[in-house]
Amino acid sequence: MKRIDGGACAAQGFRASGIHCGIRKNKSKRDLALIVSDVRAAAAAVYTLNLVQGAPIAVTRKNIADGYARAMICNSGNANTCNLNGVEIAEKMCALVGEHLGIPASDVIVASTGVIGQPLDIAPIASGMEALAAGLEPDTTAAAEAIMTTDVRMKAVAVEFEVGGVVAKLGGIAKGSGMIHPNMATMLVFLTTDAAITPPMLRKALSMDVKRSFNRVSVDGDTSTNDMCAILANGLAGNPEIASDGADFDAFREALNAVTVELCKMIARDGEGATKLIECALTGAADQQTADVVSKAVICSSLVKAAMFGADANWGRVLCAVGYAGADVDVSKVDVSFTSAAGTVEVCKGGAGVPFSEALAKKVLSEENIFIHVNLNAGPCSSVAWGCDLTYDYVKINGDYRT
Amino acid sequence: MKRIDGGACAAQGFRASGIHCGIRKNKSKRDLALIVSDVRAAAAAVYTLNLVQGAPIAVTRKNIADGYARAMICNSGNANTCNLNGVEIAEKMCALVGEHLGIPASDVIVASTGVIGQPLDIAPIASGMEALAAGLEPDTTAAAEAIMTTDVRMKAVAVEFEVGGVVAKLGGIAKGSGMIHPNMATMLVFLTTDAAITPPMLRKALSMDVKRSFNRVSVDGDTSTNDMCAILANGLAGNPEIASDGADFDAFREALNAVTVELCKMIARDGEGATKLIECALTGAADQQTADVVSKAVICSSLVKAAMFGADANWGRVLCAVGYAGADVDVSKVDVSFTSAAGTVEVCKGGAGVPFSEALAKKVLSEENIFIHVNLNAGPCSSVAWGCDLTYDYVKINGDYRT
Repeated sequence: MKRIDGGACAAQGFRASGIHCGIRKNKSKRDLALIVSDVRAAAAAVYTLNLVQGAPIAVTRKNIADGYARAMICNSGNANTCNLNGVEIAEKMCALVGEHLGIPASDVIVASTGVIGQPLDIAPIASGMEALAAGLEPDTTAAAEAIMTTDVRMKAVAVEFEVGGVVAKLGGIAKGSGMIHPNMATMLVFLTTDAAITPPMLRKALSMDVKRSFNRVSVDGDTSTNDMCAILANGLAGNPEIASDGADFDAFREALNAVTVELCKMIARDGEGATKLIECALTGAADQQTADVVSKAVICSSLVKAAMFGADANWGRVLCAVGYAGADVDVSKVDVSFTSAAGTVEVCKGGAGVPFSEALAKKVLSEENIFIHVNLNAGPCSSVAWGCDLTYDYVKINGDYRT
Repeated sequence: MKRIDGGACAAQGFRASGIHCGIRKNKSKRDLALIVSDVRAAAAAVYTLNLVQGAPIAVTRKNIADGYARAMICNSGNANTCNLNGVEIAEKMCALVGEHLGIPASDVIVASTGVIGQPLDIAPIASGMEALAAGLEPDTTAAAEAIMTTDVRMKAVAVEFEVGGVVAKLGGIAKGSGMIHPNMATMLVFLTTDAAITPPMLRKALSMDVKRSFNRVSVDGDTSTNDMCAILANGLAGNPEIASDGADFDAFREALNAVTVELCKMIARDGEGATKLIECALTGAADQQTADVVSKAVICSSLVKAAMFGADANWGRVLCAVGYAGADVDVSKVDVSFTSAAGTVEVCKGGAGVPFSEALAKKVLSEENIFIHVNLNAGPCSSVAWGCDLTYDYVKINGDYRT
């Protein structure tokens, strides 16, 4: 397996497009994205577990119930959530894609992201659809830009891997930034692959994967109403269709995880206002549940996040988060260290502080990518969670998001 | 019942003192507090459920196992937590109080607050003890100041109430500010009363109360390692000792709740960096658990908190928090409004937005005390939770707390 360029258009037979249609006032910001497979593709998606769900989720759920789709459309600037006519508008978006591409409206995955509770006007989408369809090309950039909201960095990843004797590709794009604390689903992620795989196995691979990828990310503890991760697999790589567990399915899952983990890191690093990617590597847990819960508690702690912003080796806050995570932990066994490109500093052994160089700690924590290693010394299980620091800019961005 | 002055010294037979002994470098900040009852008092306390617990908690638990105590000592500037000699130091603190007051060391409640994981030096406490004991007087101020860390405002409340045919008093002091998200216990709160009540009934009253008071507060979602709420009841009011349920116990609980709820609001309003008190009044819940969980989710949401800071009526974030709270809610029935001294603005009816004046909303949300009213329209249960806004200063304070 190796990293390649191309994001959601790396795999054979996928084209994408992104335009400014007018949902956003800022004309230099694209606000409508489209990804299309040249042939019908197996489709799977996972969604937010928030009880308040965006209208597009209901429509997408219905459209891929048969396991297949051809296109994914997504607007930014408006979440189309908590609106009385939300489902109607989401269905119109699918119908417009269907008309312009000559495919059934029921083969379209639809998503929206932006402000909640403001009616979404179909007019700019309708008038932009011709340009959107005309702009389709094997380049992921415009679509990746069009789904961004407060994101600062574009997020696209792809890999090439071997499966069933052929080379296949899998890639995708994501938007993250705020209201990021996925629960059994994720922010918006659109994945594509030319591997051949049946809809049931694609669903299985995706739902297994999100537990170890997107559900391990948090920016601010708020589970969005519009989280969705969707994947299209069009089979053009020519491998024997993956229809059961086995070596081919494992190769597919490995490629999928390589892409999703990279997108996770991109989403965390580009959290609203973030200046740093924080990875909590949790080892020595007695069971997987403990490893998962504790590592996530550490990267979710506002106090840990603020300390990382200030490059302050305040490890007591890490231990505090371990203690309230809700897992059964012997805190007198816990070791904590901070690592970055500048080195490693051990700060806590067996639940108590050890002397360390504040100068080295400052240097380590001033880097852009910080590992917090927590060893529970109680068993063989481990986990990783991805987060970011809490900064003035997070407050600034969210103190006045709507205007 | 009526509000009176005096805090932890309002009740008969209680004196307090607070000095700077040298735990903190800043000589103008008191760092050691003592509250003493002239006679032995029934004692009860509740503690953090964090698995990492400060050494003072272990010592206090042991000292009040018999249901009685005479004094409460508390230092700020160092949490005496995650230190190898923590219990030894906490016991020395009790022994010093015992020596200077001529009472058993086992009649002392001990607490510490401040940085985790830095050994606490007994020397400044030992050398300050004489001045601390000499300073005891029926004035709550110096003690209330001495327990403050990043608190900006002193927190003291007291009430006078009738019980068993006599007038009794109940009051207390608190420290809050950061790492505030109590779980079955609380930040540091020291309560005193001259009502006569048995230790079992005092414990019962306190544990019933914290569920409806301190456990409904959150500043930053981080449950501290040192949370403690302790109460001494010395019986000097002369009421027939409360030894069972009934009218007297109810009168006592009502007085207790009047004091604790007021302290809750003070703690939330004085959350680290806070400019506003946010109260989420949740009504129309089908059951109490739902009312509790949902109201707390709303005041814990980073996005809601940042919106309140920016006086932005971004009610979609309120609905989002309702949706991910983990309760069984029909989101299509939910109404939301914002209220303050400047008026009320309805923003959501039946799960969808309603037109409202942005100018009025800005005015309402620019006040210092904001009510977010969420009506689930599904039943008779209600709850209140107290929080604060998320501001630049929270990040500033916590980006570099240790230095």
